[in-house]
Order: sequence, then structure tokens, then C-alpha cells
Amino acid sequence: MKKTRLEAFSDGVFAIVITLLILNVRLPEVRIDGLYDGLVQMLPTVGVYMLSFLLIGMYWVFHHYAFTFISEVDGVLLWLNILFLLFISFIPFPTMMLGKYPFQTLPVVIYGANLVLVNITGFILILYLRRNKQLTSSVFTDKLYRSQMQMYLGVNGFYLGCIALAFYAPRISVYLLGIMTFYLIIRSIVMMGIGKCNLRTRFDETPGID
Amino acid sequence: MKKTRLEAFSDGVFAIVITLLILNVRLPEVRIDGLYDGLVQMLPTVGVYMLSFLLIGMYWVFHHYAFTFISEVDGVLLWLNILFLLFISFIPFPTMMLGKYPFQTLPVVIYGANLVLVNITGFILILYLRRNKQLTSSVFTDKLYRSQMQMYLGVNGFYLGCIALAFYAPRISVYLLGIMTFYLIIRSIVMMGIGKCNLRTRFDETPGID
Amino acid sequence: MKKTRLEAFSDGVFAIVITLLILNVRLPEVRIDGLYDGLVQMLPTVGVYMLSFLLIGMYWVFHHYAFTFISEVDGVLLWLNILFLLFISFIPFPTMMLGKYPFQTLPVVIYGANLVLVNITGFILILYLRRNKQLTSSVFTDKLYRSQMQMYLGVNGFYLGCIALAFYAPRISVYLLGIMTFYLIIRSIVMMGIGKCNLRTRFDETPGID
Amino acid sequence: MKKTRLEAFSDGVFAIVITLLILNVRLPEVRIDGLYDGLVQMLPTVGVYMLSFLLIGMYWVFHHYAFTFISEVDGVLLWLNILFLLFISFIPFPTMMLGKYPFQTLPVVIYGANLVLVNITGFILILYLRRNKQLTSSVFTDKLYRSQMQMYLGVNGFYLGCIALAFYAPRISVYLLGIMTFYLIIRSIVMMGIGKCNLRTRFDETPGID
Repeated sequence: MKKTRLEAFSDGVFAIVITLLILNVRLPEVRIDGLYDGLVQMLPTVGVYMLSFLLIGMYWVFHHYAFTFISEVDGVLLWLNILFLLFISFIPFPTMMLGKYPFQTLPVVIYGANLVLVNITGFILILYLRRNKQLTSSVFTDKLYRSQMQMYLGVNGFYLGCIALAFYAPRISVYLLGIMTFYLIIRSIVMMGIGKCNLRTRFDETPGID
Repeated sequence: MKKTRLEAFSDGVFAIVITLLILNVRLPEVRIDGLYDGLVQMLPTVGVYMLSFLLIGMYWVFHHYAFTFISEVDGVLLWLNILFLLFISFIPFPTMMLGKYPFQTLPVVIYGANLVLVNITGFILILYLRRNKQLTSSVFTDKLYRSQMQMYLGVNGFYLGCIALAFYAPRISVYLLGIMTFYLIIRSIVMMGIGKCNLRTRFDETPGID
Repeated sequence: MKKTRLEAFSDGVFAIVITLLILNVRLPEVRIDGLYDGLVQMLPTVGVYMLSFLLIGMYWVFHHYAFTFISEVDGVLLWLNILFLLFISFIPFPTMMLGKYPFQTLPVVIYGANLVLVNITGFILILYLRRNKQLTSSVFTDKLYRSQMQMYLGVNGFYLGCIALAFYAPRISVYLLGIMTFYLIIRSIVMMGIGKCNLRTRFDETPGID
Repeated sequence: MKKTRLEAFSDGVFAIVITLLILNVRLPEVRIDGLYDGLVQMLPTVGVYMLSFLLIGMYWVFHHYAFTFISEVDGVLLWLNILFLLFISFIPFPTMMLGKYPFQTLPVVIYGANLVLVNITGFILILYLRRNKQLTSSVFTDKLYRSQMQMYLGVNGFYLGCIALAFYAPRISVYLLGIMTFYLIIRSIVMMGIGKCNLRTRFDETPGID
């Protein structure tokens, strides 16, 4: 399995999942008089749609970044990647649930658990690379490994906190998930460089972050 | 992030959105005797389906054209592009609404607002390129910048006019949106050149329009 | 617009349409006792699903073949191609109708009309190439042009005949559409060559058929 | 038809089918109080979703492997491949059925029959390659041919056994299908090599297994 082919397949799955999300944003069955109220009631669904769209976009950027660490794909990396895509492809389901029952404990817990599963798979992938240096590229330095570990543990700890919080204050938990997504996007923008400032350290060459 | 990979991902999203549209063209639940009448009532849905298909096709052509301005992708361009795809991916929702409640004010307003959001994102992208010349290719001249600005302001002004008109004459507003789409398609055909006449100034080399 | 990019976009649309078809093969709402009878009633839906899958596959093969005629893409070819994809993307709708109301006149007429629209767009594309030789490759000879014209006129005449027949014997009309698809597949296999026999005249080099 | 283009089209179909599966994992229509019970009742649907996701992933890996045997694509290989994709694209339907009526005879039989049809198409493809050596690459040795035949006959025999067992113990039959999938995944991991151990005999060069 060539690395480029696995990347192309993964990109396809990302593009499809991110686009399918809109199919679960469904119009309520109302007459035209009730459409305005129906749409107001749909606002949480639209908000969660946007959250998941940006999250999946962010995972796509991350996936691309993680593949710069890899020089060879073996059977384990291939199937860890398919498992990663399984959890990414599942996101539309909790997204629909969170939109339909906004700010309720159970949907927030399942949404958060889905993100944790995606991250755990990524975490195992990084650990596996650490133990199999012959599969890694020169980008994958000790420093990068440590910063990646820190990020995974940090983000996953945050998600677990959100899940726990959902039992007491699900609304705040949802807002925190949104803030984390926003933070991760800003972080990825800074890492890739912003035009004028630091074009020289742009994404494809970035050795890590700390 | 290589420019080509971002383009391939964007092309994937465009191809999926444009094809998903048909899933919202649903058969009414009628017996075979009522099928003819049911289909006649569906004509607005089919018309809006075609409008959105051609519009998304037009945005795809435009997206391809805009990427000829770019030589390097930084974090901001990457996320502006993802935001652009978010609004493109949303189009099936107002499309379904406009087909279900044809020629009503609210659906026309939301459909128009969606197009305005797509265009504003593109407008910001052009502004950002203007301020970060090191990311642009030689195609992105001052002349091109001005013609792009004019086009965005013109088209978005037109869309805002359609939204305002929708409160008084939603039917005419829909027809105007259709005429604008038709105009933009004709314009893109002329820009790319028509076989016999002007093959030498075809799309990929076109420095702009005025 | 590079020819390869237009081909890749078209391939994406073909792959999506052909795969989406299954979403309209829906399970009836029955208890497990009634599942067998429910599935038996679904047999026409499954049959039409297969017919449309093979037809779209056949159009994909044809589309690839037609692109070997082209050396340059201008604005007209680009938009004729998008129009072609519009009619291809529409096929799931009459497919669903024909499966739900099997062997009824109206669904057969609309299914046939959709195929006629696909073919007319292809026909116009060939005519346009004929008039703009500078866009064609060396494959597009006079002989190829004539054989293509004959094929289009023949197949479209056949489809128009099926539509007319649908008013008297819709069941036979459906079977004839199936036979035509089968014939076109066999024909494309022979044209591309069958392993042992004529590898030398395989598809990519085939100058035409007569 | 270039081999690479057929592969890219097939990859697209695989990526779409595997991602579409989630659209059939639908939320029950319940109030928030009943959501927990509703989700518990959905567990078989989620389990079957994962089974089909991994199975299609496994077929994708297999498809890639099979294409290393091929050097030239003729008309028969092209259409065998489209037939293969037809049966792959059908998998969401029995998946939905098996999730809705878990551990019932009829859904298990149809699910198993679908897998048998996929495998028979692959089997015929290998037989056709055997008879048309001019289409094969140097990877396709006599030894590889025999090991592929053994695998097809073994796996298909197992599936037929599962179908027969479904009439007596459908629950065990489903578990056996899951175990077989798990075995095939492990086998593909070992074949492709596991990082440290045997990088030298990784997938793309593997001459077969016995």
C-alpha cells in the first residue's frame, strides 16, 4: 500500500463525511406560516452542523500533518488509519443527536466520546510510530513526539472533562467543545504560518510545536 | 499543505455536494393515479435543483480560476477555503426549502443569504491575497484584483437586491437569481474562450476581465 | 481548465451517483414476519437499481472514451460537460420512481426521457467537436465522427421508441431498455478488446466502430 | 482504459460506500426521556455498521492487492470490476436490514449472499487472469494463483456455511461472520508486514500467501 494512495482514500472519506453532514439538517414538516418558527427551532441543528464541519475539517488538516511523519505504511498503520476513518465517519450520528436534543446530557456524552475515540486512535498511531522508527520520516523527531503526546493528552483530557461536565451543565459543555474547536483551528493557522509574518516556517516543514 | 492537495479536496467536496442535491428531490407519497399531479407539483423542486446544480458548477469553475491566483497556501487561506466549502456544502438545505415552498419570501431570503455568504468568503480571500502578495502567482495583477473586486461587489449587490425584493415580489426575485446564474455561466464561457474564435486567450491564461 | 481536472471531477460525480443509488433502495416498514413478502415486493426496485448502476457505469466508460477525442477544453465543452453531469446526476430520481411504480407508463416515459437528454447532450458535444477541430485529438477522424453520429441517432431513436411503446406496453418497454443496456455493455467489451483475441486494438487506441 | 484510472474510480466508490453506511444509522423517534432506551435498542445497528465498515475496508485493501496482479485492463476486466463494485455498493442494504432485524434468519442469509456474490466476482476475475496471462503482471505466479483460489474457495465455503447455519442459529452465524472479518483483517496485517519484524516483505511486493 503506497502512502499516497492511503492518503487519497482518506481524503475521499473526509470530503464525503464533511459534505454528508448537511443531509441530516432536515426541514421541519410545517406549513409556510410555521416555517419561521420551525427554522428558529432548528438553530441548534445548524450550529452543531457548523461545529462538526469545522471539527472534521480540522481532523483532515491534522491527518495530513500526521502523514508527514510517516515514510512507509505497514499493515498496522493501514488498519489504524481505517479505524481512525471509522470513528470520523461516525461523527454525523452524534451530530444529528446533538442537534435534535440540544444541550441534553446524553447526546453531549456520546458526541464527546466519539471525539475521544478519534483521538485515542491517533494517539496509538503516534505511539506505534515511536516504536517503529523505520516507518517514520525525518520530521518525526523526539521533540515532535513529545509535543504530539502532550497535545493528545491535553485535548483528550479536556474532552473527558467536557463529558463529565455534561452530567451537571450540558450547555456549558457544548460551548466548551466549540471553544476547543476554535482554539485548535487558530492553533493550526498559527502553525502553518500567516502570510506576511512567517512564511518560512509554513506547515509542510514545521517540525512540531511547543 | 500543498496547493494541489487542497484543490483536490475542494474538488471532492464540490463533486459530492452537486451530486447529493438529487437526494432532496423526493417522490410524493401518492398512488399511481396521482403520480402525474404529484410530479406537476414537484416542478418547482426540479427547477430549483437545476438552478443549484448550475450554481455549484459555476462556483467550482470560479474556485478553480481563483486558485490560479495563488502560489502558496498558508493557514489563513486554508481555513478561508474550508469556510468557503462550508457555505457551499450548505446550499442543499435552502435548495430543498425553496423547492418545497416555491416563490415564498423566507426561503428566497435564506437562499440568497447563503449565496452572499459564499461570495463574502471569496471576497475576503481576494482581499487577503492583495495584502499578502508573496502568496500570489503572477496572474494576480492589480488589474485582476480590481476586476475581481468589481465583480464581487456587483454580484453581491445584486444578491442583496434580490433578498430585499423577496419581501415584495419573491417570484421575480427567484427569476432574477436564475438570470444572474445564466449570465455568470455565459460570462465564464466567454472568458474561457469559445473554440474557433479565441483559443489563444483561454481560461488558464486569462489575466482577468474588464 | 485542464482536461485532466475536468475528467477527475466528472469521475467523482460518476462514482458518487452510482453509489448513491442504493440509498433509494429502502426497506419496507414491516415486522419480521412480513419481511419476506416485503422483499419480494421490492424485487422491481432491486432490478431497476441494477439497471441504473450498469447504465451509469456504461456512461462512465463512454465519457472516458469521448474524452480521448478531445485535446483542449474551452468554455463550451466545459459547460456541455456540466450539463451532461446534470442529467447523469438526475438518474436516481426516475430510478426510484420506476422501482416504486414498476411497469407503469409515466415512470418509464420519464426514465427514458432522462436517457434521451443525456444522449442529446453527448450528441451536441460531438457536433461541437466536429465544428471546432482545433479542440480535437487525432483520434477524432471523419470515420469516428460518422460512427458516433450513427450510434447516437440509433440509440436515441431506440429510446424514443421505448417511450412511445410505454403508452401501450410499459413492461415490454422496460425489458427493451434492459436489453439495450446489455447490448451497449457487450459492445463496449468488444470495442475494448477481450484479453486473448485482440489486445492490440484495445480501447485507448480504438479509432471507432463500424 | 488505463489501469490507474479504473483504480481511482474504484477507490472513489469504496470511499463513498464506506462513508454512506452511517446514513442508515438513524435515531429513533423518541422524546429525550426515551433516548437512552432507544440507543440501547440501536446497539445491533451500530455493531453491524462497524462490521460492514471493516468488511468494506478489507475489500478495498484486497482490491488494491488484486490490481497488483494486473498489467493491462481489457473490456472483460473493466466490466468484472464494475460488477464487483455493484455488489460492494449493495452492502448498505443488507447492513440496514441486519441492524433493524438483528439475529433473524432472513437478513443474515441476504447479508451472507451479498458477500458470496462479491467473492464470486473476484473468483471469476482471478480465473480470467489465469486464462489471459498477457494481462497479468509478474506478481501473478502459479503459486499466487493457487493460494488465491484456495482463499476464495475457503472464505466462500465459510460464508455458505454461515448462510446454512442462519436457518438454525442466526445469532451464531452473525458472530461467525464477525470472526471471519476479524481473521481476514489480521491476515491482511500479517501479509503487509508489521513494522519492526518484516518490513522487507511488505504488501506491495508480497508474492502471495500459503
